[in-house]
Amino acid sequence: MTSGSAYTEQVELHGHIIDSLLLPKVLDIVLEQGGDFELLEVRIGRRRQDPSYARIEIRADSADRLRAILQQISLHGAVPIEQHDCTVVAADQDGVYPDGFYSTTNQPTEVRIDGEWIRVADQEMDCGIAVDPVRRTARCVPMAHVRRGQLFVVGHRGVRVVPVARDRQVGHGEFRFMASDVSIEKPKRSLIERIAHAIRAARASGKKIVLVGGPAIVHTGSVGHVCRLIRAGWVDVLFAGNALAAHDIEYALYGTSLGVYLDRGEPAHHGHEHHLRAINTIRRCGSIRAAVEQGVLSAGIFYECVRHDVPFVLAGSIRDDGPLPDVITDALVAQDRMREHLRGAGVALMIATVLHAIATGNLLPAWVTTVYVDINPAAVTKLIDRGTVQGIGIVTDVEAFLRQLCDLLPA
Amino acid sequence: MTSGSAYTEQVELHGHIIDSLLLPKVLDIVLEQGGDFELLEVRIGRRRQDPSYARIEIRADSADRLRAILQQISLHGAVPIEQHDCTVVAADQDGVYPDGFYSTTNQPTEVRIDGEWIRVADQEMDCGIAVDPVRRTARCVPMAHVRRGQLFVVGHRGVRVVPVARDRQVGHGEFRFMASDVSIEKPKRSLIERIAHAIRAARASGKKIVLVGGPAIVHTGSVGHVCRLIRAGWVDVLFAGNALAAHDIEYALYGTSLGVYLDRGEPAHHGHEHHLRAINTIRRCGSIRAAVEQGVLSAGIFYECVRHDVPFVLAGSIRDDGPLPDVITDALVAQDRMREHLRGAGVALMIATVLHAIATGNLLPAWVTTVYVDINPAAVTKLIDRGTVQGIGIVTDVEAFLRQLCDLLPA
Amino acid sequence: MTSGSAYTEQVELHGHIIDSLLLPKVLDIVLEQGGDFELLEVRIGRRRQDPSYARIEIRADSADRLRAILQQISLHGAVPIEQHDCTVVAADQDGVYPDGFYSTTNQPTEVRIDGEWIRVADQEMDCGIAVDPVRRTARCVPMAHVRRGQLFVVGHRGVRVVPVARDRQVGHGEFRFMASDVSIEKPKRSLIERIAHAIRAARASGKKIVLVGGPAIVHTGSVGHVCRLIRAGWVDVLFAGNALAAHDIEYALYGTSLGVYLDRGEPAHHGHEHHLRAINTIRRCGSIRAAVEQGVLSAGIFYECVRHDVPFVLAGSIRDDGPLPDVITDALVAQDRMREHLRGAGVALMIATVLHAIATGNLLPAWVTTVYVDINPAAVTKLIDRGTVQGIGIVTDVEAFLRQLCDLLPA
Amino acid sequence: MTSGSAYTEQVELHGHIIDSLLLPKVLDIVLEQGGDFELLEVRIGRRRQDPSYARIEIRADSADRLRAILQQISLHGAVPIEQHDCTVVAADQDGVYPDGFYSTTNQPTEVRIDGEWIRVADQEMDCGIAVDPVRRTARCVPMAHVRRGQLFVVGHRGVRVVPVARDRQVGHGEFRFMASDVSIEKPKRSLIERIAHAIRAARASGKKIVLVGGPAIVHTGSVGHVCRLIRAGWVDVLFAGNALAAHDIEYALYGTSLGVYLDRGEPAHHGHEHHLRAINTIRRCGSIRAAVEQGVLSAGIFYECVRHDVPFVLAGSIRDDGPLPDVITDALVAQDRMREHLRGAGVALMIATVLHAIATGNLLPAWVTTVYVDINPAAVTKLIDRGTVQGIGIVTDVEAFLRQLCDLLPA
Repeated sequence: MTSGSAYTEQVELHGHIIDSLLLPKVLDIVLEQGGDFELLEVRIGRRRQDPSYARIEIRADSADRLRAILQQISLHGAVPIEQHDCTVVAADQDGVYPDGFYSTTNQPTEVRIDGEWIRVADQEMDCGIAVDPVRRTARCVPMAHVRRGQLFVVGHRGVRVVPVARDRQVGHGEFRFMASDVSIEKPKRSLIERIAHAIRAARASGKKIVLVGGPAIVHTGSVGHVCRLIRAGWVDVLFAGNALAAHDIEYALYGTSLGVYLDRGEPAHHGHEHHLRAINTIRRCGSIRAAVEQGVLSAGIFYECVRHDVPFVLAGSIRDDGPLPDVITDALVAQDRMREHLRGAGVALMIATVLHAIATGNLLPAWVTTVYVDINPAAVTKLIDRGTVQGIGIVTDVEAFLRQLCDLLPA
Repeated sequence: MTSGSAYTEQVELHGHIIDSLLLPKVLDIVLEQGGDFELLEVRIGRRRQDPSYARIEIRADSADRLRAILQQISLHGAVPIEQHDCTVVAADQDGVYPDGFYSTTNQPTEVRIDGEWIRVADQEMDCGIAVDPVRRTARCVPMAHVRRGQLFVVGHRGVRVVPVARDRQVGHGEFRFMASDVSIEKPKRSLIERIAHAIRAARASGKKIVLVGGPAIVHTGSVGHVCRLIRAGWVDVLFAGNALAAHDIEYALYGTSLGVYLDRGEPAHHGHEHHLRAINTIRRCGSIRAAVEQGVLSAGIFYECVRHDVPFVLAGSIRDDGPLPDVITDALVAQDRMREHLRGAGVALMIATVLHAIATGNLLPAWVTTVYVDINPAAVTKLIDRGTVQGIGIVTDVEAFLRQLCDLLPA
Repeated sequence: MTSGSAYTEQVELHGHIIDSLLLPKVLDIVLEQGGDFELLEVRIGRRRQDPSYARIEIRADSADRLRAILQQISLHGAVPIEQHDCTVVAADQDGVYPDGFYSTTNQPTEVRIDGEWIRVADQEMDCGIAVDPVRRTARCVPMAHVRRGQLFVVGHRGVRVVPVARDRQVGHGEFRFMASDVSIEKPKRSLIERIAHAIRAARASGKKIVLVGGPAIVHTGSVGHVCRLIRAGWVDVLFAGNALAAHDIEYALYGTSLGVYLDRGEPAHHGHEHHLRAINTIRRCGSIRAAVEQGVLSAGIFYECVRHDVPFVLAGSIRDDGPLPDVITDALVAQDRMREHLRGAGVALMIATVLHAIATGNLLPAWVTTVYVDINPAAVTKLIDRGTVQGIGIVTDVEAFLRQLCDLLPA
Repeated sequence: MTSGSAYTEQVELHGHIIDSLLLPKVLDIVLEQGGDFELLEVRIGRRRQDPSYARIEIRADSADRLRAILQQISLHGAVPIEQHDCTVVAADQDGVYPDGFYSTTNQPTEVRIDGEWIRVADQEMDCGIAVDPVRRTARCVPMAHVRRGQLFVVGHRGVRVVPVARDRQVGHGEFRFMASDVSIEKPKRSLIERIAHAIRAARASGKKIVLVGGPAIVHTGSVGHVCRLIRAGWVDVLFAGNALAAHDIEYALYGTSLGVYLDRGEPAHHGHEHHLRAINTIRRCGSIRAAVEQGVLSAGIFYECVRHDVPFVLAGSIRDDGPLPDVITDALVAQDRMREHLRGAGVALMIATVLHAIATGNLLPAWVTTVYVDINPAAVTKLIDRGTVQGIGIVTDVEAFLRQLCDLLPA
């Protein structure tokens, strides 16, 4: 936004504008849409029942952008000071709105006819507004009901929305259930790009990148992606449990994970024993590092950690088999080891492990960028409910996420 | 909140208090906690980079409540104008904080020592703050690390939180993923009580109660609950598809739903044919009403609808078998029938049917109380993503929900 | 099934009857439906390409039951030795099948017309079979397409299904994805009755009932139910983590769980600190038992455990706050303590805790009845994937489950 | 498997081998593992309480493979006729089993010591079996408890498993909940390869490939993948609803889906109106084909369908906005259109649409390969519960699936 924004318009906002979050919402939209604002006048009611008033100058660097901003904030009741009647155009075909038709929301709506604000009847979302200028009436009409010659509102001039006030009587308990934030229907690529950006920024500023991973990294065939990240220096410390390490090593030694050959998806005979044999093999060597040095372990995530001196903390749990000799079986000792390694963290990337992600989230200050990836929306929700609200949750396939992330971080 | 609130304290709030939603959040908390406020002074920066300032008088009807409010808003940076150093008490046992210890969040925190605000090191949630008054340092210490004699902050005086600013650079795309609103870990009884209250209020004010239901009502053994609601007059119109009606009638005729005996959970022989035979039987009669009048159908949800003159709209879909003769197979005709019946609606109670719930939500204005109940969190999320943001989503067992609701509505 | 089963019929089964699981499936159905069988002749191909043959006498105690069995096994290709043509009846109304119509599956089907087996065209599930006896053709006709006078097959005589052979080329990897076993759409009451029966049977035979629980027991308001079970002697040992105990004690001391008042569903001010204060309080006492003896803790699950001498094992994890002094922080020590208490177990009832349920499942022999209850289907699936295949999974609301279970077990 | 399999061993199987599914299971394993069998002797009990007996010759083309088969079938009680004592080796390190240790299941297990079968105590999965040859005892020992010098069973000789009989008393109701088949933790690449293979096979044999798609194809940014499939001739007919088409056209006209720019993941101003404007635009043209011919629509899935003469069926539903002029609003008419196009289908590929997938599944015979892809496991389960048991369900990210599928099918 340059200072030379030539396009401006003044809008007004009435009502309980602070209490009801309207003013901040309007300002938010202006900034998000690439505009800027100046609060020309703000009169805030002293008590909660007192009305407030704001006069705001909106600025943008193009007429288009300004119009876009005005349209969007009009949905929250911010209307230009100079007001106009609504514009109507006759439908030229049955079942088709005129071009540029105003598309309704389900909020109470009014249109201005001959200087008077008229409430729209039959309020329904995704309709057009048919106006009868003689009777001074307006109502929502579904697309399939449009009749040729019917007058419809076009554009946003002369239309205003009167948002439903938040009902304090019903209380917050319910309305916290209102908006969906862990959706599986949103495009993910741009989100992954931002995560890659945050990781590069962390490294550039000398902050640590912490990877916290569960065994689904192995089961989904993502070992190669994580190895690439480690080799390219994108992982400063790895937190995991016995399972990730055991299955990574199982895969390195047998080509299986949970006994299933990852390249063909078929179970190995006696494959369910592989992870136990893998653990036994490492216990015989004494440690993962010793297994690498003795040439017993020569591939996989933990092999790369040893080779590239990436420290790891394996925290034990009561469901562990074995466990591997590197596993810290005492939870308090493991927490302290994690605390040490989290000093200086910039990004925590948590993949498919509720237990370790919550544990790490508990130890992190709010200013560390925290990303949680899981195919299970409930897992993402659970993590965020535990207080790690700064988290970015992504509901997706772990393998798909890691592959795309690798592509965005230079090897 | 009576006007005679005797307990007051003035607090200050600095920073981008509107832009960052801090002021509305603080005012929200005051009201939620049963207090009241007066904005004594608000200076709002004209441009977005300008700092703002608010001086607020907080009032409550007891010292306890006032203290509670002050504690909570302090987490958002609102601190009393008269400031005090933090209070410290020595731990009297290893591994145990002093009573009344300040419990940390993961936000940046400062404590006041000898008039000076000191940043707390090692920020971590759910810790105590150990203070070294000589070196003027403070740091988070986990409970298990407490040593006898160590000084810990108690109470909220002299502690302030400096909330992490929202990072506009990262943008909204990510932060919309932030907070969990469709949680399965929340207590449901009080929420169901509020829904019962809204239903009673709708009836008292002459508004309609619309029930929108899917076949899981039958599969989960909840037919009896819905029949009770209908008989007691708590349903003014029923929207459903072929499936709810077919399985309700299957259950009335055969005791099964999807071919499984509901009383013992065992599949009937050839039970998968029952719903088709049920549909065929009703087609032979000509309509559901005719089947009731001919004595063919004498129990179940649709029997009660006929007996109590509760209208129903059965909207067809491409996955229907049969369908029942009452099913409206044309989607546009069905929508129009639904629109008619939704006039005057006060509450829409939607149970375990994504398709019919979204369809109904699309037709409803935002001021109708909309409740969606499903055991599948993804279904609840999906509904809310479609624009029905006024919805109250409850992730629970359908049978458990309806049983509790019945208990709260007089038969 | 008494020995005096008077109703019998001989059926034949051809093909790869063992290899393709057909014979066991048919015998299964006979027993499930309350019938009995005798294998009169079994000729099993020596090599896998050799066909097999079985002649089976089916017996039942009523003509109805026998007919039901014959109908059901006919879907798997078992047909009476004495064969009949199919019976056809003319439709007497448009859009309505004749009573007793044969309802199709999506498997290849043949009907017998004048002694000849004719393949049914347009195979589709949930249709009737229209027969043209002159042209000797038969095809599936959807209900809405029925025309008056059209001839339809009624009953199961003269109809046979030729099940699609399992395709070994495609392999098992895919077909393991085939059948749904963790469904949320099934009636639960009868299942809960069986669990109650298994619990009573375990107690009668002197075997232990092990309860494994997660904190959702508290969050969902189910503490009272578990207390009732403990007081009535239905719990011999309790396994949990720090979280269940901390929130149970938080609820006993503050009336909240995760800071939310359970009776009204509203957050307490500073409620997020309650669990930490609860833990601190018990640490000060030295142990949960000491807190009970000192009168500090006087309600809740762990209070009842202490009072009724029900041992508990609290296994630590890295996400624990505090933890409570009774928590065993070393995973291997905790596993050993669990092993000791599992000696003599008859039933393990696992409620809403993936970690502790998997851990316990790992330690149990296959002959212990294992029940897993969670509202999240993915959690149930995960548990069963870990090898605890003897498990009974129930996807339902924890509170609803425990309330129903309490009602079925005498207090 | 060549006929010259040189390696053979005879095994025996006792008990209720047919009734309990043991024999088919053992034969299955032999074939799956690449071996072959001959049933040398089968004596099947005439009544269900009578024991059965089978003597089977197992053959394989290598000693390794034979050993693998023998190991695996031994878990189901099939033991070599020539029997041996178990082999024991002393542990050479604390906490480490000897190489080749026998790894336990949770099933009842016996080991042969001096010709006698001894029951293993403390049965637990993932343990070794420690043997005391003097006292003739054996018990499961967890890895961490191994002491140097302790004798452990190695290999599978002299070990047999006595599978827990299925308990008919508890009944099928429960055991249908037993095994997980819709897992999100399995590797998907090989499964996708098999689907690509099935698609190529369908085309080679002149059968149709039917694509059934929901709007998540657009929301997840997968339009390009589907366009590639259409251009390369891998789609013979497309089934969808108004939503897929509306969002595909919204994306073609505005670059958004549900109002969110897919390339950057940011909401467009007034983006929620785009799909309605897109529908209005096509209605003005008269049809999708007309819009393509008039140059209004020049990209996307439906553009490619028109250009490449791929027919599509758009079936309406009550939640539709508009709808598009091509939408068939009557459900029965839409079903019939779908039936016509399904004639000759070889593969049905269903992507993220429960409604259309169930509807299509209802119309398909069991021998059509049916693939259902959704990120929501509950959706996959629901589809399969509706009777489309031949289905292959994949729980994954739609975009990731389609990208991988495209890579496997020549453009």
